[in-house]
Amino acid sequence: MPELLDELRSTAIEKLPDFTEKIRNIIIDSVSRNGGHLASSCGCVELITALHRVFNTPDDKIFFDVGHQAYAHKLITGRNFERLRRADGICGFPHPAESPFDPAVSGHAGTALSTALGHCAADPEAKERIIAVIGDGAMGCGITLEALNHAATSPGCRRLLIILNDNRMSISGNVGTLSKMLNRVIAARSYNRFRRGVKKLLSPLPRVKNFFSRLNEAGKSVLLPPALFFETLNIRYFGAINGNDLEQLLPTLERLKELDGPILLHVITQKGYGCRYAAEDPTRYHGIAGCDPDTGEMSASPQGFSAAFGRAMIKLAGKYPDLTAITPAMTEGTGLTEFAKLYPERCIDAGIAEEHALTFAAGLAAAGKLPVCAFYDTFLQRALDNIYHDTILAGLPMVIAVDRSGAVTDGPTHHGIYNCSFLRSLPDLTIITLSDTGEMFAALEFALQKHAPVIVRYPKGSGSQLDFQPFEYGKAVIRRKGDDSSPVLWACGGEVKTAMLVADILQNNALDCTVVDARFLKPFDRDLAIKFSGNRQFTIEDHCLTGGLYSALTETLAGIAHAPVAGFGWPDDRIIPHGETAVIKENAGLDARSIAGKIAELVKKN
Amino acid sequence: MPELLDELRSTAIEKLPDFTEKIRNIIIDSVSRNGGHLASSCGCVELITALHRVFNTPDDKIFFDVGHQAYAHKLITGRNFERLRRADGICGFPHPAESPFDPAVSGHAGTALSTALGHCAADPEAKERIIAVIGDGAMGCGITLEALNHAATSPGCRRLLIILNDNRMSISGNVGTLSKMLNRVIAARSYNRFRRGVKKLLSPLPRVKNFFSRLNEAGKSVLLPPALFFETLNIRYFGAINGNDLEQLLPTLERLKELDGPILLHVITQKGYGCRYAAEDPTRYHGIAGCDPDTGEMSASPQGFSAAFGRAMIKLAGKYPDLTAITPAMTEGTGLTEFAKLYPERCIDAGIAEEHALTFAAGLAAAGKLPVCAFYDTFLQRALDNIYHDTILAGLPMVIAVDRSGAVTDGPTHHGIYNCSFLRSLPDLTIITLSDTGEMFAALEFALQKHAPVIVRYPKGSGSQLDFQPFEYGKAVIRRKGDDSSPVLWACGGEVKTAMLVADILQNNALDCTVVDARFLKPFDRDLAIKFSGNRQFTIEDHCLTGGLYSALTETLAGIAHAPVAGFGWPDDRIIPHGETAVIKENAGLDARSIAGKIAELVKKN
Repeated sequence: MPELLDELRSTAIEKLPDFTEKIRNIIIDSVSRNGGHLASSCGCVELITALHRVFNTPDDKIFFDVGHQAYAHKLITGRNFERLRRADGICGFPHPAESPFDPAVSGHAGTALSTALGHCAADPEAKERIIAVIGDGAMGCGITLEALNHAATSPGCRRLLIILNDNRMSISGNVGTLSKMLNRVIAARSYNRFRRGVKKLLSPLPRVKNFFSRLNEAGKSVLLPPALFFETLNIRYFGAINGNDLEQLLPTLERLKELDGPILLHVITQKGYGCRYAAEDPTRYHGIAGCDPDTGEMSASPQGFSAAFGRAMIKLAGKYPDLTAITPAMTEGTGLTEFAKLYPERCIDAGIAEEHALTFAAGLAAAGKLPVCAFYDTFLQRALDNIYHDTILAGLPMVIAVDRSGAVTDGPTHHGIYNCSFLRSLPDLTIITLSDTGEMFAALEFALQKHAPVIVRYPKGSGSQLDFQPFEYGKAVIRRKGDDSSPVLWACGGEVKTAMLVADILQNNALDCTVVDARFLKPFDRDLAIKFSGNRQFTIEDHCLTGGLYSALTETLAGIAHAPVAGFGWPDDRIIPHGETAVIKENAGLDARSIAGKIAELVKKN
Repeated sequence: MPELLDELRSTAIEKLPDFTEKIRNIIIDSVSRNGGHLASSCGCVELITALHRVFNTPDDKIFFDVGHQAYAHKLITGRNFERLRRADGICGFPHPAESPFDPAVSGHAGTALSTALGHCAADPEAKERIIAVIGDGAMGCGITLEALNHAATSPGCRRLLIILNDNRMSISGNVGTLSKMLNRVIAARSYNRFRRGVKKLLSPLPRVKNFFSRLNEAGKSVLLPPALFFETLNIRYFGAINGNDLEQLLPTLERLKELDGPILLHVITQKGYGCRYAAEDPTRYHGIAGCDPDTGEMSASPQGFSAAFGRAMIKLAGKYPDLTAITPAMTEGTGLTEFAKLYPERCIDAGIAEEHALTFAAGLAAAGKLPVCAFYDTFLQRALDNIYHDTILAGLPMVIAVDRSGAVTDGPTHHGIYNCSFLRSLPDLTIITLSDTGEMFAALEFALQKHAPVIVRYPKGSGSQLDFQPFEYGKAVIRRKGDDSSPVLWACGGEVKTAMLVADILQNNALDCTVVDARFLKPFDRDLAIKFSGNRQFTIEDHCLTGGLYSALTETLAGIAHAPVAGFGWPDDRIIPHGETAVIKENAGLDARSIAGKIAELVKKN
C-alpha cells in the first residue's frame, strides 16, 4: 500500500486535519515550482482524503471528472510530486498506466460518469463501489448529462455513488441553469416542514408520495431544486454538505456506503481552500505556470497569442458591430477577459459544452451575427461534428479561433495535434495558421470578411517575431529565400520559428534553405509546392504527421514527378507524452538541431 | 406564399382534418416510391399543420430536431415530393438553401435547441417566436441537454417555445430515465389536488412557492415528473396534450403564443399515425427503401453488411463470453435486433448519446469486457474525442463497427466520408475496411483478438463477392494481378468492387491492371506501396480524397522516387449532395466507366 494511504488509514480521526494540511502543502509546493492546477486541487483535499479513508480503494474505484481536481488523490496513492508535469516526472492527470488507483484517463471534462457506469455494468452484482466525482462545471457537459439520463436504468447502477463536487465555478464562473439551481440553498428547518407537509398531502398519490418520501433520507440541509432535478432522474440526492469539513464528510460517506445507488452526494467545496491567494482569486490560480509558494506572486503573464487574440477582438468589436464571441468556459484562457468586460453582451460563455457552444454560434450566424468561437485545440475535438453539420452545411460565416494548438505540457489528454486531419477534409472551410502574434488582427479580420467558416489556429507562446506580411487567400509566404536548387522548408504556426532556426544551422553548414510559411493549411498553396517540385522539400509542424502540412504537400505532389519529400511532425503510431514542450520535442527529434541534422543527412544522401 | 401553406391558412378549422389527410397521403405515396422516413413523418402531420396555422412562418421560425420528422413541413412550405431523395429532387432533411422556411440544417439529432437559442440571442428583443421541435429521443442527446441547461439563462430566451414531440421512441424504443419519466402520466384531477395543497403549504417558503405556483399555468393534464424536470431548469412546462388532435393543438398553441418563454409544450404523438402498417410497426417503418403504399409490403431486406454484422455477433457471442454490444440507438439499423433478443444483457442501447455510448464502452473494457460498438459512420463524428481520450489513451480493447460508410442517399448530413482522416492520425488504432460481407466474422474476430482499439468500417450494401482471404495485420490483398508494369488500382471497402469493374473495362481496352484491396487503412501496407512505386498507382475510395486511402499512399511514397499517383474519391472543396448513390457517384466522375476513362487517359499521357 502506498505510504501516505497507509498513514491516512491508520491515523486517528482527530489527527486527519494535520494529514490534509501536509497534503495541501505538498501540492502548493509542487505546483508553485512546476506549474499546474492549483485552486481546484486545493479545494478537494478533504474530500479525497475522506473518500480514501471510507472506501477500500483501489477495489472500490474513484473516477475523477476533470482530472485536475485529483492531485491529492495522486499524491495519497503514491505518486512522486517532485517533478509534476515534467517529462521525467508524473503527468498532471489520472492515468491507468501510472497507478492501479487510476481506473480511467481524465483530462477532458465530463467523462467520469460514463466510464463509471461502464464499470458498474461490467459486473452488476459486484460489491465494490464505483464512485464518480463530478464537478459542477462538468455537470453541464453533454456527456455527463447523457450519463445522468442513463444512470438509473443502466445495469449495476446500484454500485454507483456520484459525488457532485460543487465549487461554484467551472474554470471561471459557472453558467447555465443547473449551476444557478445548485446555489439555491434552503435552510434545513423550512425544508423539513415542507417535506412533512408534502408527505401528508400525497397520501392519495402513491407514486408521487414515494418520489417525495425518498427525499426524507437526504442529509442535514437540502437544496430543494437540485434534489428535485436528480430525483426526477431517479438518482437519490443527499446533501449539501461542506466538502472541506471532514467532520461532515466522514460520517456521511460511512452512511452512504451502506445504501444502494445510484446515489448523489452534493458537497460544496471552496476552490483554493487552505491556500490564501488561490482562494481569493481561484480563476487566476486555476492553471498556473508557477508562482511564489508563500505569496502567490507570478511573473507577468507572457504577451503571447491569447493576449493578442483578446486585443484584436476588442479592436474588431468597434469595427464590426455584429461580432460576438462564444466560448465553452474558456473566457480567461483564450484571452477574452477584457473583451468580456467591455462587451458583456457580445461575449457568451456557454459553459463546458463544446457541442452546444458551436451550434449556438451557428444559430447566431444564421440570424446575422458574426460569431467568433474561442476554443482550445484539444477541446475542439468535441465539436467537429458541429463544425460540419451545423456550420459548413448551412454555409454560415463563422470564425473559430483555436488556441493552444500543438503539443502541450499537460500531455496527451491536452495535445492539440489531431484536428487538422479532420478539418482539412471538410468542404468550404479555410484553415489559417499563425506564425506570429503580429498576424492575429489581420487574420481575424481576413476571416471575418471571408463570411464563411474559417479556422484560425495558433499555439501557446509568443511566435516567430517575423515581419508582417498581408494575408492573401490560399497563399503561402516565403520567409527566407535560398537559391534555385536549395532545399525548401515548409512550416506552419509556431514551427515557422523552428524552420528559421533550422535554416540558420544549415547555413552554418554551408547549406542554404528556402523557408516557406504555409499559412493556409486549406486551401494549401499548391502552385508554390508544384513550383518547388524539383527541390528537396521538407515540412515542419506541431501536428500529427498524418493529416496536416506533410499530407497537404504529399497529396499535392503525388501526381507529378517530384524530388523526395520528408516531414517532421508527431508520429501517428505512438501516444505523445507530457512534459516541457522543448523536452518532448527533443525526445521526438523535433527540435531545430535534430531536424537540421536529419535534413543535412537526407540532402547529402541524394 | 407556397400554395399549400396558403390553403392551410385559409381553410376553415373544421376542414383541417381533410388537409392533414391530404398531406399524409402525399407523404405515404412519395416515401413508398422513393424511400425515406415514414413513421415519424406520419406522426407529425397534425403538429406541423397546427404550428404553421398558429405561427407566422417564416418570420416565426421552426427548428426541427431530427429532420426526418419534418416531411409535412417541407411539403406545406412548397417542396415538390415527386422525387424526394433523388439527385434531381429535394433532400429528405430541412436545409436553408432549399427554402426560407428552413432556418437550419438538421440531420443529426439534437441540434435544434442550440441553433434556436442562437437565433434568440442574435436579437433578444425581436417579436418573432423561435420554435424548437425536439423529439423525445433527441432529448437525451448531450447537445440538447447542454442547451436545456443554457436555455433559461441565454439572451432572448423569452422568444423560445420548445415543442417536445414525444412519440415514446427514439428510432427504436427509447432508453434512459428521461423517457421513462415522460411516460408517467398523472391524471389531472389528482394533480390539481396536489398542486392546491402544495401552494397552501408553501406559504413560509416564497421561492419554492413561486416555483410550484408556476405549475398552475400548466395545461389540462400534467405529467408531474417531467414538469418538475423542466421547471428546475426554469423552463415552463405545459402539457401533455395529444399531438395528433388539432382540437387540442390549436387552442393550446394560440394560448402559448401570448406567453413569454422559455416555454415547453409536451405533445404526445403516435409514430406512424394515420398509416396502418407504419403505426403497427414504427421501428420497421422508421426509414425504409420503399414499400407498397397500400399494404406496406417491402421487398425482403437485402442481406448486406448490417445483416452479416448481426450474424457474426451472434456467432462470436458464444465464443467470447465477455463480448458486449453497445450502440447509440442503432440496434435495428446496424443489424443487432436478433443479437439483442438472444443476449439482452449483452446488448446495451445507450440512446442517441454517441459520446456517452463510446465512453461507457471504454468503462466496460477497462472492467474486463470486450465491447463492440455499433455506429453509423456519420454519427461517429460525435464520438471522435471519446475514441481518443477515453479508449486509446487508456489502451483499452474496443471494436468499433462503422456501418453506412461512404456517401449515402440521405445526403450531406449523413455521408460517412470524413472520419478516416481523423482516425488515421490517432495512435494505437487499427482501421480495417471490408470489401465483402464474407469478411465480417473474420474481421471482427481479428479485431477482438487484437485487444486494442480497432475500427471495422463497411458500407451499406452487399460487397464485392470476392473470395475470402484471411486477415494479416497491416497487409493488403492483391485481388487481381496484372504484369510487372501494369497500373495498380488500390481500393478499399465497397470500392474494391468498383476497382474490379474498372479493371474489366480497361482490360477490354487492352490495359491490364493489378487490383489491390488495401484492407488496412492503418497501418497501411507501406511495403506493398513501395514495391509498386515504379508503377502508375491509383486509389479508389468512398471517402473524402483528403485523409483516406489516397493520403495514405501519397504520404508513403513522398520520400522516394515514384511514378505519378492519382486518386478517385470525394473532393474536399465542395459539399457532396444527396441522391441515389450511383447517380451522385456518376455526377462526380466516380463510377467505374468514368474512372476507367480517366485512368486510360493518364496512363496514355505518361
